[in-house]
Amino acid sequence: MKNASRTTGTAASMTTSTRMERDTMGELPVPSNAYYGVQTARAIENFPISSLRIPRAMIRAMGLIKRAAASVNHSLKLLDKKPADAIVRAATEVVEGRLDAEFPVDIFQTGSGTSTNMNTNEVISNRATELLGGARGSKLVHPNDHVNLGQSSNDVVPTAIHIAASETIQRQLIPALTRLHKALNGKAREFDKIVKIGRTHLQDATPVRLGQEFGGYARQIELGIARMKRAQAALSEVALGGTAVGTGLNCHPKFAGKVMAIISKETGCAFKEAVDHFEGQSAQDSLVEASGELRTLAVSLMKIANDIRWLGSGPRCGLGEINLPETQPGSSIMPGKVNPVIAESVTMVCAQVIGNDVTITVGGQAANFELIVMLPVMAYNLLQSIELLATASTNFAVKCIEGIKANEERCKSLIEESLAMCTALAPVIGYEAAAKLAKDAYKSGKTVREVAREQNVLPEKRLTQLLDPWRMTQAGGPVGSAGG
Amino acid sequence: MKNASRTTGTAASMTTSTRMERDTMGELPVPSNAYYGVQTARAIENFPISSLRIPRAMIRAMGLIKRAAASVNHSLKLLDKKPADAIVRAATEVVEGRLDAEFPVDIFQTGSGTSTNMNTNEVISNRATELLGGARGSKLVHPNDHVNLGQSSNDVVPTAIHIAASETIQRQLIPALTRLHKALNGKAREFDKIVKIGRTHLQDATPVRLGQEFGGYARQIELGIARMKRAQAALSEVALGGTAVGTGLNCHPKFAGKVMAIISKETGCAFKEAVDHFEGQSAQDSLVEASGELRTLAVSLMKIANDIRWLGSGPRCGLGEINLPETQPGSSIMPGKVNPVIAESVTMVCAQVIGNDVTITVGGQAANFELIVMLPVMAYNLLQSIELLATASTNFAVKCIEGIKANEERCKSLIEESLAMCTALAPVIGYEAAAKLAKDAYKSGKTVREVAREQNVLPEKRLTQLLDPWRMTQAGGPVGSAGG
Amino acid sequence: MKNASRTTGTAASMTTSTRMERDTMGELPVPSNAYYGVQTARAIENFPISSLRIPRAMIRAMGLIKRAAASVNHSLKLLDKKPADAIVRAATEVVEGRLDAEFPVDIFQTGSGTSTNMNTNEVISNRATELLGGARGSKLVHPNDHVNLGQSSNDVVPTAIHIAASETIQRQLIPALTRLHKALNGKAREFDKIVKIGRTHLQDATPVRLGQEFGGYARQIELGIARMKRAQAALSEVALGGTAVGTGLNCHPKFAGKVMAIISKETGCAFKEAVDHFEGQSAQDSLVEASGELRTLAVSLMKIANDIRWLGSGPRCGLGEINLPETQPGSSIMPGKVNPVIAESVTMVCAQVIGNDVTITVGGQAANFELIVMLPVMAYNLLQSIELLATASTNFAVKCIEGIKANEERCKSLIEESLAMCTALAPVIGYEAAAKLAKDAYKSGKTVREVAREQNVLPEKRLTQLLDPWRMTQAGGPVGSAGG
Amino acid sequence: MKNASRTTGTAASMTTSTRMERDTMGELPVPSNAYYGVQTARAIENFPISSLRIPRAMIRAMGLIKRAAASVNHSLKLLDKKPADAIVRAATEVVEGRLDAEFPVDIFQTGSGTSTNMNTNEVISNRATELLGGARGSKLVHPNDHVNLGQSSNDVVPTAIHIAASETIQRQLIPALTRLHKALNGKAREFDKIVKIGRTHLQDATPVRLGQEFGGYARQIELGIARMKRAQAALSEVALGGTAVGTGLNCHPKFAGKVMAIISKETGCAFKEAVDHFEGQSAQDSLVEASGELRTLAVSLMKIANDIRWLGSGPRCGLGEINLPETQPGSSIMPGKVNPVIAESVTMVCAQVIGNDVTITVGGQAANFELIVMLPVMAYNLLQSIELLATASTNFAVKCIEGIKANEERCKSLIEESLAMCTALAPVIGYEAAAKLAKDAYKSGKTVREVAREQNVLPEKRLTQLLDPWRMTQAGGPVGSAGG
Repeated sequence: MKNASRTTGTAASMTTSTRMERDTMGELPVPSNAYYGVQTARAIENFPISSLRIPRAMIRAMGLIKRAAASVNHSLKLLDKKPADAIVRAATEVVEGRLDAEFPVDIFQTGSGTSTNMNTNEVISNRATELLGGARGSKLVHPNDHVNLGQSSNDVVPTAIHIAASETIQRQLIPALTRLHKALNGKAREFDKIVKIGRTHLQDATPVRLGQEFGGYARQIELGIARMKRAQAALSEVALGGTAVGTGLNCHPKFAGKVMAIISKETGCAFKEAVDHFEGQSAQDSLVEASGELRTLAVSLMKIANDIRWLGSGPRCGLGEINLPETQPGSSIMPGKVNPVIAESVTMVCAQVIGNDVTITVGGQAANFELIVMLPVMAYNLLQSIELLATASTNFAVKCIEGIKANEERCKSLIEESLAMCTALAPVIGYEAAAKLAKDAYKSGKTVREVAREQNVLPEKRLTQLLDPWRMTQAGGPVGSAGG
Repeated sequence: MKNASRTTGTAASMTTSTRMERDTMGELPVPSNAYYGVQTARAIENFPISSLRIPRAMIRAMGLIKRAAASVNHSLKLLDKKPADAIVRAATEVVEGRLDAEFPVDIFQTGSGTSTNMNTNEVISNRATELLGGARGSKLVHPNDHVNLGQSSNDVVPTAIHIAASETIQRQLIPALTRLHKALNGKAREFDKIVKIGRTHLQDATPVRLGQEFGGYARQIELGIARMKRAQAALSEVALGGTAVGTGLNCHPKFAGKVMAIISKETGCAFKEAVDHFEGQSAQDSLVEASGELRTLAVSLMKIANDIRWLGSGPRCGLGEINLPETQPGSSIMPGKVNPVIAESVTMVCAQVIGNDVTITVGGQAANFELIVMLPVMAYNLLQSIELLATASTNFAVKCIEGIKANEERCKSLIEESLAMCTALAPVIGYEAAAKLAKDAYKSGKTVREVAREQNVLPEKRLTQLLDPWRMTQAGGPVGSAGG
Repeated sequence: MKNASRTTGTAASMTTSTRMERDTMGELPVPSNAYYGVQTARAIENFPISSLRIPRAMIRAMGLIKRAAASVNHSLKLLDKKPADAIVRAATEVVEGRLDAEFPVDIFQTGSGTSTNMNTNEVISNRATELLGGARGSKLVHPNDHVNLGQSSNDVVPTAIHIAASETIQRQLIPALTRLHKALNGKAREFDKIVKIGRTHLQDATPVRLGQEFGGYARQIELGIARMKRAQAALSEVALGGTAVGTGLNCHPKFAGKVMAIISKETGCAFKEAVDHFEGQSAQDSLVEASGELRTLAVSLMKIANDIRWLGSGPRCGLGEINLPETQPGSSIMPGKVNPVIAESVTMVCAQVIGNDVTITVGGQAANFELIVMLPVMAYNLLQSIELLATASTNFAVKCIEGIKANEERCKSLIEESLAMCTALAPVIGYEAAAKLAKDAYKSGKTVREVAREQNVLPEKRLTQLLDPWRMTQAGGPVGSAGG
Repeated sequence: MKNASRTTGTAASMTTSTRMERDTMGELPVPSNAYYGVQTARAIENFPISSLRIPRAMIRAMGLIKRAAASVNHSLKLLDKKPADAIVRAATEVVEGRLDAEFPVDIFQTGSGTSTNMNTNEVISNRATELLGGARGSKLVHPNDHVNLGQSSNDVVPTAIHIAASETIQRQLIPALTRLHKALNGKAREFDKIVKIGRTHLQDATPVRLGQEFGGYARQIELGIARMKRAQAALSEVALGGTAVGTGLNCHPKFAGKVMAIISKETGCAFKEAVDHFEGQSAQDSLVEASGELRTLAVSLMKIANDIRWLGSGPRCGLGEINLPETQPGSSIMPGKVNPVIAESVTMVCAQVIGNDVTITVGGQAANFELIVMLPVMAYNLLQSIELLATASTNFAVKCIEGIKANEERCKSLIEESLAMCTALAPVIGYEAAAKLAKDAYKSGKTVREVAREQNVLPEKRLTQLLDPWRMTQAGGPVGSAGG
């Protein structure tokens, strides 16, 4: 089993035979069967920091860029057909995840992500070389001159982060939120007739309908989906085309526009070349902004999950207004004790996303002159936030929300017991009289209805008519200072 | 002098004569000359926590709501002309800041901000009563039945926060950013011809123009202005109309729409009634989102201010590529030592905004059932962030950016010394030869030009033509792997 | 009334007559009656950012340093008796708060706090000059040569922060926590006999005693007091003696030790010269550490305040196990609705402190070479956290905790209704039988006791003996897997 | 290769044959060869959230607890020798990491970590059963009755977090910091004679020695080690013995003390039973405090890594006062361009730790009544912070600090050029004259020495004697206001 927190080895360490490769710093052994090369090997050696590796979505995005770059460079007559075609085929394997094991570099590496760009160049170079019948390491298709043509780590890496994040939002998070929204909306309708006590300051307030509460949650998620689209908009401008320092030196002026047009089509997310390349790669405010939207969603989910936990508290000594679906044995001896574990897992995801947001905010400040040097850690945290919110939202919908049942009896009895009922009598018997009734009820421990009957305040029929909490859950009614 | 951090007294404490007022909890003395009443007095007593008070922008927003509410309630025939007119006049004084001293309640109060709503109701009630010839405390114009008609703290307070924040963004922050943008843009043009070394990883890289760097900063601020408009959009839906629990009980269905139409017109910011009132007041995700935009702006400013500090470092032992305007004596003995104090004050504001953002994020989680109970602290931090960013941006523009002068000599000499010059020779003399030149220059401590001349690499004229860094600051050129 | 959020004016703006003063940058008018001088006037002009001013505790600490410095410099024969005595007298006025209005410089100023150090020097210089019969501005007692003798802003300001923070912890926060601890401990004893349902995952669990819950809170605060002492220990090493860059240039080697000995005695807090002056003033990790302790205390208070809010939820539809003292009218019509406003104000303070902690953490990173340039904003946030935690803790103790009453009936009835009772029967009737009883109770809505009686599971006497929840609140009992 | 961010499968998914197991919720297939059982299988199904698993250090700690618990339960005559011995053997395999693959449960699970406790119980139960010749799933050694005897998830899980964190600090972090401290201290000595310009506000200030700067860093790390010991002290009290709700129900009173005595001996870290079990498990302030210490260390490392990056900036256009060891090719064409990649990886670790700290702070607030329900996410972040700081510190020492070389020539020439030199002349030629010299030098672009010679200010010998920056790096000298 693969495990993030316990991994130490890499592909290299499991290999015995090696080939020697050379860069400007000298020779280094590379596993014979590795597609990656010397620069990746050096990065493995340089950064033995964590077990965290570049996420799948980011590798995919790197592959998308390299593939489109080869096509465009060929169409601009900068790259011959043969190497271009081989790069396209090799990059496709990277896109599809078939070469993920060839990306062993730590997240905690060069702040520009250069090691990951070089890793990608090497893998594609070697695989493309192989496809053309060459030997690994022979650079028949060259990692720099061919694969990285017209690019720099400094524009490729931030571009890949934008693509990976936007595509993961598109493919995973928005669908998950859509499902969660549907589940909440379904419950809003299902519970539309169930009147329950409202609570402000955790204190009994005037009634609401359980469906209204779930409708509020659904609206939070609907707004969350809109926020995710704003996050995507924030990510739509990319650095590609700026090359090393933003000037676009050594890059064909049409290169970036053409590459991003292809990727926009492939991903279904809109991307365009940065309006200003110096802004585009000397800072990453866009990631900071996108993360702000994500943690706003986390705050929404925290509220919903906490409400769900509390509404389902009990079975006898809590609020108990809803019953959560059982997902694991609570107590072996106490029936009805359903620990809200799915909701808890959601809140833990939210805590993680809120912390990730701070990491990204700290990272966003490490922007000096022409380059920001916290890109990999920003990428890791942003993508983790997106993915966690996606899986947690789906799981929340499927294993919790969809199975919630209203405890209608409990809702009804709490309302009946509540002193809020007196407010419904006020317009008829007067404020003073109603307040006195409530006071008598409070002191005696009886319900407002019981006291009203005892004191013959109104005819039974009229009383029944008035003491219908349903009416209080609708807008309007006698206008007045609404308290609170 | 007024001082936030050292204040302990309140209006009340300076007063000797009092009047007794009564609420459901009993009697309490209120200063005779106070417009506020017993509930405010109780809140003063209950919350002796800090010297922080409800900000001006928030008091103004409370006044705007109460004024429009009176008009609308009158137009809906729920309030007679006389009290309505008196409320309008009194509320206008609140709007204009003439009664600010009557708002002595601490920020750290009820989480719903009820004390501040009651404070507002009391002040307007007493002032309106007075305008009608009544005595303070007589409730001729009633704080609840008249001033708070159709409202609840639970919908008024979050609405006021949205109004205050959006209006302050509109009136203070966007104009400040516009000025800063103009200043940066001006420098981008002014410095467009000044070529300087680019820096990635803090290491010498290929040249850029100083104007390009300032253009990047200008673009960050341009995007910041767009972010502020998104923050305003996030704040556009308001809770008003939901009353105590979101059901709108005791509120005319047309009330909120009409009130917000008036306020939209008065403020020039677009507001509308919440699509879902349960979302609108049981949570405040919108404040969390808006704060996310603000701290993104803070991250932008942090980058710009840090770059400015570094570019101006020296005078002899730093980068020294720009000269900052002198604003206060640096060293009495060392000329040219201009401490970048304005930039430092900007970075301190950014640190504050980033922390405020976390406070708001923690606050946003305190949403249980029908009410979120961290409203005043969220309001305080949000408004502080907006105001600090506004004043700091203006000050940054006026006292720093606008006075920056390029140190053209220094820029030129650094470029000339840099080994990056060799890259310009590579397309002509070949990569290997260019690399060797650079190596020789590095070892000998000479410039690339000097070594090239010594070695007669190219005719002088051609050398001069090629070793023009300007050409390297433009997109295009020979396409290749752009390194980095 | 003084108000942090609405202040714009300063002492200067209220003054009409001025005197001209000069520094190396030229002339500037200073209010005639101001003790501060030209450098302060320049700072007022340079930093029109906020209404936040240097806190009282910090001004006091500046005064303590200047006073002790004058004494020590005299004792080291570096300063004549006459100016030394005058400085001591003037600084005493600063210490005692009599000259607070003379400190008009914004928090958002030079990152080193130089403006505040110069402000202090000027105020003391002018006041001392006046005491010696000289004219303000005449520098008879010189701000630099006499008041600042052997010092630099770069060592004085961080030292003042340490002193102000440690002393405020000592004088305000620890006493407040001691009171809160006493209140919680008192309730722990008072409620020691009250058995109630335990709750894990918000679900009914085995019983605890209300006193045990309050005992847990008391222990959190006891640990909090220990944390505050650790914060003081973190602050005990000070930068004084390092002067401008940490080398101690222009400072007598015995100066700092002697000054801090005096201040340690005066404040009752232990301070000593930094072991390494480069660490001492090029960074402020100690403030970051101290803030970490403060926000840990905030997390403790958040837990306690939230539990209190929930335990007091109701009156009819919540948990209702305790009754909170009424501090302000909740609902005018619903008796027993006591909004937990004091607890809410505590949670808002906690949110503020948690955000302040992030500001301080961001600030702590702005340490370049020999100086950290976020000192004033770090000072402001740290002192605000200390003071807010102090006032909120006292208020929490006095207005909430001390007045809490147990709702013994409610506690008892919830336990009786709970299915946890069956666990007490298991050791006697067997696990299976007990589980079945619970299941029957759950289905029928009856209590375990009722079902046990109906099914004649055990003789009444034995049943009564076993179904005593008290026994379950003590350690031990039949050992087994304790579930959960 | 194992990869945290791309993993989806688990042990189970690779298995074809299964055995059916049953719990109170029904049957579920479990892989035949799995040691874990039905509750783990259910957790796998319930929490498909991330690829993050319980860290090694935490599994080890769970094993330590279960092993010691079996011994102690046997010694207390609560468990027979045979199952006790088998548990000890099986738990030892867990401790040693031989069964890590049997822990497939997600971090984002039940907030109490119950799934992980049950996972541990099942694995040990089945392995112990097997050791006694029984079949997996037969519960010959029972997961609850034997392995979990006297325990609850609610006390075991927080205890395991304390053990794991403290032991990882002890075994990994403190040794790493010790090495880093030694490296920095070594450089402090090595560079003790190298005088360089001091910098405050990034501006040239009076000289310091490069060794003094490194001495400051060393002191920061020395204090960091002390902070880590305080973090361990914060973790020393453990929840064990409190069982489900803190009362210690079903647990022998001597159990926890005896277990922790064993574990203290085994780990070399001091642990003791919580003074108050309600504090001990209803909250986890101790984790929040420990995290505060960790992020303080992160702030220290951020300062050091940033200074190192800047000091090494260049090669021609930066400060260039030190040369960093080359770890990977910087630029293929520009010699001497050594990107500070190791320092950058350190700063990214710091950003992660600072964000993790916020996650832990948010987590610490999720403490309701008798249980805090964010334990796994708090554990994950805390352990990640510890491990990242450990690996990054070692790597920083080995691959960066130890290889740093001073650029003595550069240091010397910057000092010589600096106008700070004039300060050394002031005591002899007077302040005014010295200031004028500096001004002349500033205007002419010459050095102070050159101008002094030209103007024949002092005899050459005396000039040489005075213009020795070394003297300015030592405490003392003529006492005066030290500026800054």
